[in-house]
Amino acid sequence: MKINVNEWGIVPGRRKDTSFRLRDLLDFCRMEEETELIFERGEYHFFPDYAAEKLLYISNHDEDTIKRIAFDLSGCNNLTIRGNGAMFLFHTDILPFYCHECRHIHIEGIQMDYERPSYSEAVIAHAEPGLLELSVDRVKYPFFVKHKRLYFTGENFCHELQFWLEMDGEKGEPIAEDPDFFFNLPDGGAAAEWKETKEGAEIRLVGEGNRFSRASREGNRLILRHHPRNYPGFYVTDSVDIVCKDIELYHSEGMAFIAQYTENIELERFNITFNPKKRRAFTAAADGFHFVCCSGLIHIKDCLAENQLDDPLNIHGIYFRIREILGKGEYLAELVHHQQKGVKPGKPGDVISLVDKRTMLEKGKSMLAEYRILNKDFCVIKLEDEIQGLVPGDVFENRSCSPDLCVEGCTFRNNRARGLLLTTAGKVIVKNNYFHVPGAALLISGDCREWFESGASGSVIVENNIFDKCAYVTNWGKAPIQVSPETEEFADKKRVHDRLEIRNNKFICTDSRLIWAQNIDTIVFEGNQVILEEGYPEREGESFYTSYVNHFIDKND
Amino acid sequence: MKINVNEWGIVPGRRKDTSFRLRDLLDFCRMEEETELIFERGEYHFFPDYAAEKLLYISNHDEDTIKRIAFDLSGCNNLTIRGNGAMFLFHTDILPFYCHECRHIHIEGIQMDYERPSYSEAVIAHAEPGLLELSVDRVKYPFFVKHKRLYFTGENFCHELQFWLEMDGEKGEPIAEDPDFFFNLPDGGAAAEWKETKEGAEIRLVGEGNRFSRASREGNRLILRHHPRNYPGFYVTDSVDIVCKDIELYHSEGMAFIAQYTENIELERFNITFNPKKRRAFTAAADGFHFVCCSGLIHIKDCLAENQLDDPLNIHGIYFRIREILGKGEYLAELVHHQQKGVKPGKPGDVISLVDKRTMLEKGKSMLAEYRILNKDFCVIKLEDEIQGLVPGDVFENRSCSPDLCVEGCTFRNNRARGLLLTTAGKVIVKNNYFHVPGAALLISGDCREWFESGASGSVIVENNIFDKCAYVTNWGKAPIQVSPETEEFADKKRVHDRLEIRNNKFICTDSRLIWAQNIDTIVFEGNQVILEEGYPEREGESFYTSYVNHFIDKND
Repeated sequence: MKINVNEWGIVPGRRKDTSFRLRDLLDFCRMEEETELIFERGEYHFFPDYAAEKLLYISNHDEDTIKRIAFDLSGCNNLTIRGNGAMFLFHTDILPFYCHECRHIHIEGIQMDYERPSYSEAVIAHAEPGLLELSVDRVKYPFFVKHKRLYFTGENFCHELQFWLEMDGEKGEPIAEDPDFFFNLPDGGAAAEWKETKEGAEIRLVGEGNRFSRASREGNRLILRHHPRNYPGFYVTDSVDIVCKDIELYHSEGMAFIAQYTENIELERFNITFNPKKRRAFTAAADGFHFVCCSGLIHIKDCLAENQLDDPLNIHGIYFRIREILGKGEYLAELVHHQQKGVKPGKPGDVISLVDKRTMLEKGKSMLAEYRILNKDFCVIKLEDEIQGLVPGDVFENRSCSPDLCVEGCTFRNNRARGLLLTTAGKVIVKNNYFHVPGAALLISGDCREWFESGASGSVIVENNIFDKCAYVTNWGKAPIQVSPETEEFADKKRVHDRLEIRNNKFICTDSRLIWAQNIDTIVFEGNQVILEEGYPEREGESFYTSYVNHFIDKND
Repeated sequence: MKINVNEWGIVPGRRKDTSFRLRDLLDFCRMEEETELIFERGEYHFFPDYAAEKLLYISNHDEDTIKRIAFDLSGCNNLTIRGNGAMFLFHTDILPFYCHECRHIHIEGIQMDYERPSYSEAVIAHAEPGLLELSVDRVKYPFFVKHKRLYFTGENFCHELQFWLEMDGEKGEPIAEDPDFFFNLPDGGAAAEWKETKEGAEIRLVGEGNRFSRASREGNRLILRHHPRNYPGFYVTDSVDIVCKDIELYHSEGMAFIAQYTENIELERFNITFNPKKRRAFTAAADGFHFVCCSGLIHIKDCLAENQLDDPLNIHGIYFRIREILGKGEYLAELVHHQQKGVKPGKPGDVISLVDKRTMLEKGKSMLAEYRILNKDFCVIKLEDEIQGLVPGDVFENRSCSPDLCVEGCTFRNNRARGLLLTTAGKVIVKNNYFHVPGAALLISGDCREWFESGASGSVIVENNIFDKCAYVTNWGKAPIQVSPETEEFADKKRVHDRLEIRNNKFICTDSRLIWAQNIDTIVFEGNQVILEEGYPEREGESFYTSYVNHFIDKND
């Protein structure tokens, strides 16, 4: 059934009741077998006031709290939303799209932005090693200084600023030296004092030996990160067949798109980019596309992700840490990283891989028989079989939730941090993409010490991509392509990751570094073109650094 | 059925699994018709690690978030917990007792404390108008100074200190002048800088004209309030017949006891007092006993509430504010005060009183037909009848939830703020109690501008109490007995509150003030004894200030 949403009173304009009317419409859709919602072109406003509210544990985001939701599609099946290029303007704090236990959702043809984004920005008007004068647009980014602290206010928020990302004023990308700057945090950062000025605000470092980045200079733009990472643009859980096409996402208060335990996702022409009517330095407040414990095929096609505040793509599972062995095949387990709390271990019947905490190699596998969530930190799992040799501190991951991934025809540029983070046992193909990212363009890592993002990757094929001056910020990458599972120990022959084939790519570099790889069985490097250019500080490193790599096959030789 | 909890593995000692085992035991109790849980004497520890977790909207507390719970009695009926004087030691953050939809709960004979309380304390070692040197016990109250800010740490917390309450070092009660001190807050307070010292920490005021309280002096103790008010000792909702007897509560992270929408509560020898083994300046972190939208009889007998951080007793409803009139008898309504979010308006069949926002007088009443909670801020209610003359901004309260109250044989002393806050339409009797509180000992108020605590009181009888030097801090009270609904306008004859009889009490005063009353129909003052003593600054004011009081009957004359 086709529904023009204006029949439900959902019309363009700055109306507080749009979120309210949308609730009734979606309640109706939940009861229908198949619906298509059609928006006419125009600017729609979604306020949190009368919106749905749910307690959400969103992986890789801050806070496990109640969230307001504009489009709560939970329980909808065979639902299409056709935006016809409509602009959806959200008002903080609100989650634009939430899909839980949905099948066949198709969202197409929308632009998304926030009236007052969750971050602010400033231009450096004057720079000294210990003093920056900032120019701030007070209308777009209202702020005040109180007790030498700087606070930004917005729709329903007031937050102290304690870190920023500095962007090169000309290149529109993170500066090459220490682009992240932290201050006045309880656990570190520089000591700083603020003063309000006519043009904006002035920050002076008062601690001994502190200075701003050596690359800080007049004209650079600061992305002021004063808001928690708490509301992604799309949050999808326990769903099947989700398609988003022709999406222009100009801002989100967290990642642009994150899915957990979802099978088959297709993102086509999903652009994380600038609102042409605004001139912001940033787009999404965190990662671009993020997939946790998904399955089936993740297909990312012809997308653009630029200037978002973290990696454009990350696909991983979660390592649960065993706290106690309760009985035969029964374990008390812990979610360790604070942004992974409340995520379930899977469903009965899933294959669980038990992993040695020192080597990150499998000690055994079994089927999940049942589990009990105790709270957001702890759960008890029962496996079909007893696995020998497990000790508290060992970890496990859900191997049934290791999707295939195809990333093709995309552009990734000017964001904070790295490019694609690839830790899935499924088949991975990365082809025909363009990368200009400050960290490693491809990172195959995983660890059970800090992030607890699993797991062991299978076959990764990388072909016909352009890697254009990547890894120029050393904190974020050792080379354009990096393989670095963080293990304490190495086995004699067995490696954490399996196989990486790099064929027919073009590497435009400003130094020798191409590949930094550790603890992978096989790397094939064939038919790639390497071009040396200038424009960034030359970083130290070999073309091919390999350590605990069983087979390195360089067919360019 | 009687159960010795040690049969379920619940035994004294510092064990992480006690909360876990308790969950299983309480799951069992939920299925039984009647159970009695017997604890042997000893020290039991309740850690949050494996405890139950629920999303709670606790009235008059900060934060509407998930909370860990030690004794989650939800759904239990005819349950008795016999402590036999056992000590229950809780570890932050955890809610000790939660009763939801319970009938006939009896809890008896326990001591309750926290291993590391949610507040800290310091002794003033040296005082100047703009500088205080504080001595802090670092073992009990670990802290650090970073970037001139002072942070306290505890079990699972790290919070910046931004306000305190100063206690007279000799009297052990709030000092007489400005005992609350606020600093470095985004919305105000003094500007202050911290420095770590050998003995503790030093705070220097750096803003112009700021100074500490004129009563600040060496030897006074500061109660350092660095933790949100988020976990009461007991939280009871939608229950019937709750009895707590012989409870020694030494600390709670919020109020000692709060109930919402509960019928019949009896607290006997429920003492909010000092742990004899510790020498803290504080007990509960907020109010003593607090009742929101309860019904039946609230009976408080032979209790002691001392040195808690807010009023010993408060009984009130909630004014919901009408945001929009949607149809005949249908209203979009808002919970306004940030600590009342998420509270429901009642149940179908309850009597709703619609109240003029300017005069706080009833415009009409009707029965609640149905309601829909939109989110923690908003709900839609539908009444049986249309009420004429309502306008957005008017408010309503649930009159079916106006319990009777009897407070007898209690001692209330040395806490922050006021004594008993009495706004219920039920019959109220306050007899044979002793009061030594810094604010008004009895306050009959209510407002629909700031706190939104309702409502119009009925008959209040106050007899045979001792009011010993109350209302010595003027911010907290105009007189020992104060009636002051906060209305914008006054009607010709109709008054907000009905009748207050004050008979045969003893008032020990350090100035003339006895009663400050506004907007009540009748006050009877008979057979009371007034004794004048010294020891506190003499505050200005008449013995009987009355304004918009229809009948003031002084039979002492």
